[in-house]
Amino acid sequence: MIRIFVTGGTFDKTYDEIRGGLAFGDTHLAEMLRLGRSRVEVSIRTLMMIDSLDMTDGDRELIVRNCRQCDEDRIVITHGTDTMVETAAAVAAGVTGKTVVLTGAMIPYAFGSSDGLFNLGSALSFAQVLPPAVYIAMNGQHFTWNTVRKNKQTGVFERT
Amino acid sequence: MIRIFVTGGTFDKTYDEIRGGLAFGDTHLAEMLRLGRSRVEVSIRTLMMIDSLDMTDGDRELIVRNCRQCDEDRIVITHGTDTMVETAAAVAAGVTGKTVVLTGAMIPYAFGSSDGLFNLGSALSFAQVLPPAVYIAMNGQHFTWNTVRKNKQTGVFERT
Amino acid sequence: MIRIFVTGGTFDKTYDEIRGGLAFGDTHLAEMLRLGRSRVEVSIRTLMMIDSLDMTDGDRELIVRNCRQCDEDRIVITHGTDTMVETAAAVAAGVTGKTVVLTGAMIPYAFGSSDGLFNLGSALSFAQVLPPAVYIAMNGQHFTWNTVRKNKQTGVFERT
Amino acid sequence: MIRIFVTGGTFDKTYDEIRGGLAFGDTHLAEMLRLGRSRVEVSIRTLMMIDSLDMTDGDRELIVRNCRQCDEDRIVITHGTDTMVETAAAVAAGVTGKTVVLTGAMIPYAFGSSDGLFNLGSALSFAQVLPPAVYIAMNGQHFTWNTVRKNKQTGVFERT
Repeated sequence: MIRIFVTGGTFDKTYDEIRGGLAFGDTHLAEMLRLGRSRVEVSIRTLMMIDSLDMTDGDRELIVRNCRQCDEDRIVITHGTDTMVETAAAVAAGVTGKTVVLTGAMIPYAFGSSDGLFNLGSALSFAQVLPPAVYIAMNGQHFTWNTVRKNKQTGVFERT
Repeated sequence: MIRIFVTGGTFDKTYDEIRGGLAFGDTHLAEMLRLGRSRVEVSIRTLMMIDSLDMTDGDRELIVRNCRQCDEDRIVITHGTDTMVETAAAVAAGVTGKTVVLTGAMIPYAFGSSDGLFNLGSALSFAQVLPPAVYIAMNGQHFTWNTVRKNKQTGVFERT
Repeated sequence: MIRIFVTGGTFDKTYDEIRGGLAFGDTHLAEMLRLGRSRVEVSIRTLMMIDSLDMTDGDRELIVRNCRQCDEDRIVITHGTDTMVETAAAVAAGVTGKTVVLTGAMIPYAFGSSDGLFNLGSALSFAQVLPPAVYIAMNGQHFTWNTVRKNKQTGVFERT
Repeated sequence: MIRIFVTGGTFDKTYDEIRGGLAFGDTHLAEMLRLGRSRVEVSIRTLMMIDSLDMTDGDRELIVRNCRQCDEDRIVITHGTDTMVETAAAVAAGVTGKTVVLTGAMIPYAFGSSDGLFNLGSALSFAQVLPPAVYIAMNGQHFTWNTVRKNKQTGVFERT
């Protein structure tokens, strides 16, 4: 059984047609798992639904506490890419003995051309087989939390 | 570096608008990796482009030979689901010391609602971290080749 | 109020993931109108759900009778492209004083890359403003039924 | 021959994956016509690429001048929905003897779930058959410019 914590990020941005801009509604995680015909046993909980640039220390604390307290020792966190590395560091500092994989998307799932489904398949797979530690899974790759940074120019996660 | 061998299957079926039916054109693999913003180093080779129900012993021999002779020791094979287990058995009999992951799709990638991108993200991830053996990666799960069968009624791969 | 008669055709083909081939399920018309945010008052009835190559004289009689007997005098018929012109001729022979527009698709709506939504918007619009007669609306164009043929090589409807 | 003037609006919004927000790139018009397999002879010109809330009197003057000076007497204008009615009024005041149809979208075309393709098929069809005047084509319906308003609460165009 894998626990999935949803925190928002580009993954779950939708288009608000009345306001004419981007917004957060409900998470698309369940729909994405259905589309992927996933048979992995998961339990999904939405912790927050925010842009990761707006994430506070208190939000990170909430994520860490949930990772620590949940029964599962394999966890996937969907997260905005901009501060994913910061949250990974916070989780690494506060959680031991669990395999935690953070993932996200460069393009919202609600857009036809999203990388979200690819990343979700990848993160769920890494979460099943990697040894306990905190990882970031993006672009088909995985990185231990303290070996990676997001290149803000290219949008790509790369080894430090 | 991961070697990807394309053999066809539902993954790559397209709609032939002149004939009004399903057909095989070029593989969608490169386009899918672009969509997924994959940064995994891969080398793609199309071995055949057929429905796996039409796959012959000679076709399987070709697949096995390519797995054995290629330089890479991590391999993903895209394959129709109907005889994926048979091909996995053939590869297991003929290839040692390599991590080989077969994957496919229940719905063609060209359909908007395909599970293909999810499965590809999953297969590429398993191929990077699993120890040498032959696996099937479907529905977010992975199975060693001799522990799985496709349930023809539900379309789902399950442990034997 | 516009009456929409559904007869099947490429428009409504879906992918049967258990059989691994094309099939007809329920019509996608209501879903397409929702996606197009259509505010045109319509009443949808599914007369049959078949490939137009399989359409018999009896099927065409049923279509003609429904066009004649319905209260609305503006009608859209979704239809396979292969025998759309034959059905248009049958309707023209049996129905007078009504605006009837036949339309279809070259690619199933369930495929991401379908022309169906474009054709549906086009057919509904022509049906609202053209004078009584039987028309075919494809590729953004409209043709009176006896001035058009389908070019089997290119899949395009052209003036005779 | 129909002239298409592109002015931006939701129709053409894309997702800027580096900035993480909505943006305007190139117009999707040509791609949409290809997807719709449109055989209508058109000539596309991009006049501007802006949110219609940012449209100035000078921008409207440019649109009017282009409508007046182009050779074609059937014109489609793609436009943001928020001030579409204002621009329609400006065109009506400055252009006579031409059929001008303004259209737009509630959801960007780049999102999988856009109404844009439906509206484009509709607008191109109305533009071919309606008598000279200025119209708005949205939601499958058409309105003469001075009989319509956008309901800001529901996002729907309705008769005044």
